[in-house]
Amino acid sequence: MPTNREIQLASRPQGWPTEDNFRLVTAEVPTPGPGQLLVRNRYMSVDPYMRGRMNDVRSYVPPFALDAPLDGGAVGEVVGGEADGFAPGDTVLHGLGWRDYALVEAKAARKVEPGLAPVTAYLGVLGMTGLTAYAGLLEVAAMRPGETVFVSGAAGAVGSMVGQIARLRGAGRVVGSAGSAAKVERLRALGFDDAFDYHDGPVRDLLRAAAPDGVDVYFDNVGGEHLEAAISSMNLHGRAAICGMIAQYNDTEAPAAPRNLAQVIGKRLTLRGFLVNDHGHLREQFVREVSGWLRDGTLAYDETIVDGLENAPAAFLGLLRGENLGKMLVRL
Amino acid sequence: MPTNREIQLASRPQGWPTEDNFRLVTAEVPTPGPGQLLVRNRYMSVDPYMRGRMNDVRSYVPPFALDAPLDGGAVGEVVGGEADGFAPGDTVLHGLGWRDYALVEAKAARKVEPGLAPVTAYLGVLGMTGLTAYAGLLEVAAMRPGETVFVSGAAGAVGSMVGQIARLRGAGRVVGSAGSAAKVERLRALGFDDAFDYHDGPVRDLLRAAAPDGVDVYFDNVGGEHLEAAISSMNLHGRAAICGMIAQYNDTEAPAAPRNLAQVIGKRLTLRGFLVNDHGHLREQFVREVSGWLRDGTLAYDETIVDGLENAPAAFLGLLRGENLGKMLVRL
Repeated sequence: MPTNREIQLASRPQGWPTEDNFRLVTAEVPTPGPGQLLVRNRYMSVDPYMRGRMNDVRSYVPPFALDAPLDGGAVGEVVGGEADGFAPGDTVLHGLGWRDYALVEAKAARKVEPGLAPVTAYLGVLGMTGLTAYAGLLEVAAMRPGETVFVSGAAGAVGSMVGQIARLRGAGRVVGSAGSAAKVERLRALGFDDAFDYHDGPVRDLLRAAAPDGVDVYFDNVGGEHLEAAISSMNLHGRAAICGMIAQYNDTEAPAAPRNLAQVIGKRLTLRGFLVNDHGHLREQFVREVSGWLRDGTLAYDETIVDGLENAPAAFLGLLRGENLGKMLVRL
Repeated sequence: MPTNREIQLASRPQGWPTEDNFRLVTAEVPTPGPGQLLVRNRYMSVDPYMRGRMNDVRSYVPPFALDAPLDGGAVGEVVGGEADGFAPGDTVLHGLGWRDYALVEAKAARKVEPGLAPVTAYLGVLGMTGLTAYAGLLEVAAMRPGETVFVSGAAGAVGSMVGQIARLRGAGRVVGSAGSAAKVERLRALGFDDAFDYHDGPVRDLLRAAAPDGVDVYFDNVGGEHLEAAISSMNLHGRAAICGMIAQYNDTEAPAAPRNLAQVIGKRLTLRGFLVNDHGHLREQFVREVSGWLRDGTLAYDETIVDGLENAPAAFLGLLRGENLGKMLVRL
């Protein structure tokens, strides 16, 4: 009988989390009951939103519990259990990552076709990550052809999709920010019209140089100084889709920004926070459109893959430090 | 031949303006040319947005020019000039206040029917002020019956309209903030379900007590701590119509609030700045609906009237200090 391993939350971080906040625990492989599947996880996702769940704060998703396994998106192979529509060997997408074996309610699992795309795609470009980019850009910010789009955290899983979808949907100019020269180079290769490393100066100045005619749509993954710069550069009737504020997830004091928020009045700006959960009605259209772009090679995606469940905390911490290019995944 | 007087901008303020920033100048009564009307102004409006125009900053309306008369909404009587559709004795609404006599292009004047409502109403409840409240609440924030509405600066010209329109359009609960006990009492008389004086404690606590089930729609006239409190109290999918931020118009340093902007993500909030200019398509519906409420007595409005052009600067400064109840006007 194989053993199971899981990563538990050992303590809640103050500020930046460390490996000490996690604990690798050996457990028994669970036995599926009626309507349950036993899944051998193959890949799990680490995502910025998980940082919020480490805090004991009521939010849109419940916090991780202490001394219990974390969870999150994963794909794996059905190795046990019986449920209508599933058979051993099926590859399924579900929400119980951070462990080798997951006991998944069949109704919370979605079968994916491993022949159509690499299974990792269902955690990224064709999954929640991709839909986040698609919905935020096209529905929340309602980008129109010809507009100038700025996306922060542009070399990340969501950001790189936002920029490419903008280009493919006819944006007039696509600008991205990232945290290293190598990432900036990658953004240019992905078809961004311009990109900058936010370490190279005040974001406000870098953005103004990259988008001299202003920004119509801002897709925010970063918050703080990036949001302030975007508001400053935004054109009349500009829209910001607020997806994340990774710059401040580890702050112990609330950030004093953006200090130019009053500009939303004169410029008639809209700032709109969103969660992908509200946009499931776009999924079918999203998969059809994005898989078409993948097939004809007009859309590319990056993955940064870390091996071993025991390295999942390190992968997550690296994500918070921006060490990933594209989607950060752990192979189990 | 009568003399004309006008208020000019003598200097630009740093921080709070003073009477020294204004200058009363005697001028000749202008002579109308073709298509122009000579108007003897009877009432002029002072509005918070004029503070922004005292700065030499490009914004949605051009700044006031130094050593030239200020301008703004006014009503007066046609006493000279000839233009199709206008006759001497007509009462007209136009944009050249801050002077006894205005030379108005006929196409920039709108004839009003003084018999239908007091002429001051066209500067307030039936004018730009009223439409601002109506459009911001119903179109920008898209208030739905049953929702809880919070409006800051609620005893002002716009705020008192917002609260009453919310009530008349079926809001579940209407809460307002104001700057004195007398204003709070007036808000209760106007039908607000609850109201508080923001001097009485942290706005966040006062609002939470007044709206224990949270806020669905926030109409912001104040900014800063009020906006932060509103974000904190807002329910899922809440909407804020950002009309003004009077708390910070005289700040010389950029304000640090709201510090909780990241909550827009998890709560899927929308913050939308607006200007009434974009909502002229609602004017006809607005006038019909609001004049009906005025006729049947379900909507009331307050005016604070100061006498004399020479006192217009004092009236404007008093407005910035919150000395008005309802619409602040100068009788000329």
